[in-house]
Amino acid sequence: MRRSAIFFLGIIASLLTACGTDASRTVYLKDYLTDEMLQTDAYPAIRAALEDCIGHKGSTLVLPGGVLPVRKDYCYEKYMNISNNAPGCKRIAFDLEGVDGLTIEGNGTQLLFSGYISPFYIENSSDIVVKDLSIDFTRTFTSEGRIVTVGDGWAEIEFPKDYVINLPAGVLRFKDADGVLYPYSHLLEFDSERKEVAHYVHDWWLGPDGLRAEVLPNGNYKCFIDRFEATPGNILVFGATERLNPGFTLDSVDGFTLENVDIWACCGMGVIAERSSDLLLDNVRVVPPPGKGRMVSISADATHFINCKGFIRMVGCTFMNQIDDATNIHGWYAVAQKKQSDNQLVLWSNYEVDFARPGMRMEFVSHNTMMTYDTMTVKNVLKYNDELSLVTFDRAIPECFEVKDVLADVDANTAEVLIKGCYIGNNRARGLLIGSKGPVVIEENVFHSPGTAILFEGDGNYWYEQSGVKDVTIRNNTFENCLYGRRSWGPAYIAVGSGIPQKELSRYHSGIKVEGNIFKTFDPRILNLCCVDGVTYRDNKVIMNEDYEYGRPGEPLVTTFCDNVTIEE
Amino acid sequence: MRRSAIFFLGIIASLLTACGTDASRTVYLKDYLTDEMLQTDAYPAIRAALEDCIGHKGSTLVLPGGVLPVRKDYCYEKYMNISNNAPGCKRIAFDLEGVDGLTIEGNGTQLLFSGYISPFYIENSSDIVVKDLSIDFTRTFTSEGRIVTVGDGWAEIEFPKDYVINLPAGVLRFKDADGVLYPYSHLLEFDSERKEVAHYVHDWWLGPDGLRAEVLPNGNYKCFIDRFEATPGNILVFGATERLNPGFTLDSVDGFTLENVDIWACCGMGVIAERSSDLLLDNVRVVPPPGKGRMVSISADATHFINCKGFIRMVGCTFMNQIDDATNIHGWYAVAQKKQSDNQLVLWSNYEVDFARPGMRMEFVSHNTMMTYDTMTVKNVLKYNDELSLVTFDRAIPECFEVKDVLADVDANTAEVLIKGCYIGNNRARGLLIGSKGPVVIEENVFHSPGTAILFEGDGNYWYEQSGVKDVTIRNNTFENCLYGRRSWGPAYIAVGSGIPQKELSRYHSGIKVEGNIFKTFDPRILNLCCVDGVTYRDNKVIMNEDYEYGRPGEPLVTTFCDNVTIEE
Repeated sequence: MRRSAIFFLGIIASLLTACGTDASRTVYLKDYLTDEMLQTDAYPAIRAALEDCIGHKGSTLVLPGGVLPVRKDYCYEKYMNISNNAPGCKRIAFDLEGVDGLTIEGNGTQLLFSGYISPFYIENSSDIVVKDLSIDFTRTFTSEGRIVTVGDGWAEIEFPKDYVINLPAGVLRFKDADGVLYPYSHLLEFDSERKEVAHYVHDWWLGPDGLRAEVLPNGNYKCFIDRFEATPGNILVFGATERLNPGFTLDSVDGFTLENVDIWACCGMGVIAERSSDLLLDNVRVVPPPGKGRMVSISADATHFINCKGFIRMVGCTFMNQIDDATNIHGWYAVAQKKQSDNQLVLWSNYEVDFARPGMRMEFVSHNTMMTYDTMTVKNVLKYNDELSLVTFDRAIPECFEVKDVLADVDANTAEVLIKGCYIGNNRARGLLIGSKGPVVIEENVFHSPGTAILFEGDGNYWYEQSGVKDVTIRNNTFENCLYGRRSWGPAYIAVGSGIPQKELSRYHSGIKVEGNIFKTFDPRILNLCCVDGVTYRDNKVIMNEDYEYGRPGEPLVTTFCDNVTIEE
Repeated sequence: MRRSAIFFLGIIASLLTACGTDASRTVYLKDYLTDEMLQTDAYPAIRAALEDCIGHKGSTLVLPGGVLPVRKDYCYEKYMNISNNAPGCKRIAFDLEGVDGLTIEGNGTQLLFSGYISPFYIENSSDIVVKDLSIDFTRTFTSEGRIVTVGDGWAEIEFPKDYVINLPAGVLRFKDADGVLYPYSHLLEFDSERKEVAHYVHDWWLGPDGLRAEVLPNGNYKCFIDRFEATPGNILVFGATERLNPGFTLDSVDGFTLENVDIWACCGMGVIAERSSDLLLDNVRVVPPPGKGRMVSISADATHFINCKGFIRMVGCTFMNQIDDATNIHGWYAVAQKKQSDNQLVLWSNYEVDFARPGMRMEFVSHNTMMTYDTMTVKNVLKYNDELSLVTFDRAIPECFEVKDVLADVDANTAEVLIKGCYIGNNRARGLLIGSKGPVVIEENVFHSPGTAILFEGDGNYWYEQSGVKDVTIRNNTFENCLYGRRSWGPAYIAVGSGIPQKELSRYHSGIKVEGNIFKTFDPRILNLCCVDGVTYRDNKVIMNEDYEYGRPGEPLVTTFCDNVTIEE
């Protein structure tokens, strides 16, 4: 459709909309783009094109292909409190709120953002499809430098020539060409040959204050890091202090497909979905961009799902080199901070806005055993702020209740999960964190995770992430040398990591089946489960190798505080 | 009223409210306070008491007297973009939104806040009275230390014993007992004898990165500051990096009285009012608290008024020792960033949310002369974000328009102003910044401002604050040794500071009368006006002294590019 046509049709379309008609349409972004926008900032065209199709159910927005620059100047702005990411006022490129039925056909377009921008934000919407595009940023949110020399309490680092660096008060600061700051609070070494987290690496947490540094005559930086150890030639990654702008943020979305999409960089998680349902990720690739010499993809988890329902499917995806897990599927516990009256609790929850709503059935969970001991209905909520609410229940709080016990929406975090044909590895930390209470199938994937490949988390004392799986099938996967990273990233290929103070009284998880998998490994620690009712391990093949130096002795198959265990080696 | 009575009346009141009755009531906070709250955090009682009276027009909330602690934990939370203060998600103690008719009788209560809290936030409300209380914080947002020694590029500073200080990466950081950070980006020396900004002081702007420092064996800190000069024994004030929590924030309030209120500390301005009308400050005292040994009151302007109408009256007030001007009354210019079409401009404005609205009459002002050349009506606004909007006007943009010209709501910033019987001085910077287009009377005040006492600002190139006064009477005031601070804080007791590139073509201000005042002064520079049509200076008395060393020669009465000047020495 030409611009002139759009011009006249716009008026007619507006009239039709006003009359309540809702005919779907195909809108071409190229019709809204000027040459200047193509050179500098396509956002005004994106906004105008979206406004011309989002009121029309079933419409398609077609991007033009090529590289499309998007700056934050004109981007829409919203205050957001996104679970497991940092709250704040966000600039958004594609803002879809209250949209029913829209396909964004990327047509191979590379969206190239500059500055702190949330590429896609989707809220209270349904049937959204985004496909055939890639996401990158002119300045990434992690910084990378080559380790030249390591001394006693310092390292010489060579940064890329296009980095803007200064040393106010003698502290290393990264900026971009616009003077925007890129704070860091974490260091992580990557193996420059293997393009993965270095062998038995350490997490260096710095706090928000940065590193003391000096510029050297050769243009490199001498950075002062207490007790630092690393291998010269490797890459030192400076991890972003905050998770400000996920690639795709979904809140209360029913029906979402992400297909043939590459996420090469973003400031936070790749895809984060809260309170959403029926989500398909098909050939989504969280990877460093080809040919740009970068080690890291994105600055946090590749994907993350909280309190989702219906289904979550990840098929043929690649999750590599990001600075946290490949996925984490969980619910959210609120913590009982205080019993205010017979039927009232002050509940605390971080990030999850409106975690309790009138009519919600909430399970009461012991923070000592993680076992549910009652379920009650919320009658009223007095919200103090995003963290604290006074919640009134329909009847008296049970006798056995203790302050610090945790509560969750019993009808959420029930999604049926399928993870199939994916490559997962080379990143910081773990592979899949599985906590959905719905049936879970993990099949035909390849894992090269530096920590545990498949972890069952959930705890009521630190992260407050709800898990307690009921039915998990792990079959026909290939595990290729996992566990080469930091010790605390997991004790075995498949493990329970739930923080449960009184494990002997807990059967938090149930129904975990591990069948027909191949483990090619330098580390014999395959399974380490606890507090599970129902473990089946059979028809798996373990092929030992010496690809990595091995230094963490342990048993291959460990089950403690488990019932109904069937292990066939 | 007793708690038991409240308990039963609450139900009846709720029923009455539901039936639509609206009888005023007197609510006593003491009936909601438990002993625990009195010791730790009164906020839950404040919230409950407010909810019991804000629906009832003409009600009164009576505070209990004594010291009332308020912590941020339970405070209500809102994202706010407050003009001339930092945007963000704010915790609020007294949140009044959509309230018609409420008196908060403080009864001598000292509200003692801990952490980043906005004490009072009032929006879309009318007829609000707050009286008889004081506001302080357990940890102030400026930090103060005694200058012990000054060396070459360093100073030894002794901080109060209760300060929590650490030196991550060798940089000085202030925290409170809860670990909350108090960032600083500005240093200012105060005279410890005179309890005012030091004579011919310097503003040390640091940026957000802080100072390198070392702890000395005696517990003092050696702070490294390039080219630092100061007098040992004086107080060095570390100014807060951001203005996060004004004492009283008003947005769209019609009718507000603040009476007998002391503001001893807050993180931002004392009173900031946007788009409000009929505001009375009677015996409001922005001062350091008695007996606590602190030099500074609040961390920004004592008061600030933007786009206000009706009247602004400040009577019998004291504005002392705050880290910016005593008041600033102005409108807001938006900047034309781009001409999009014949009748469309992309307008930029910082802070002022929704600065253009359909139906608004906007004046077009040359950024070179600050003279208005047209007035047009807004037809439509496409808001990109809080900074940028695409504004469509009812007819074509005039021929003489230039990019960078500025626009303002022609019907706002019209308040009649009375400032009477106030003490104004000892603070950083200036006294009164007067920019209202309504009639202004400044009488019977005492000024001891370190910069200009009464300044007519307004510019279209840097702060974008609208001024252009029409009728100002300055009479029967006493000016006692002003101009002892930094040179850039003003060229005379009464001055125009408007940034106007083409002054010769501008008569931006008009009608300034200076009559019957006494100037007791070491500095002869009384008047320095430019671009004014109508200046009258008569019946004033100047008494010279040598109270301060004088080092800035200048003429007593300067008028340039003015018309209709009457000066009777």
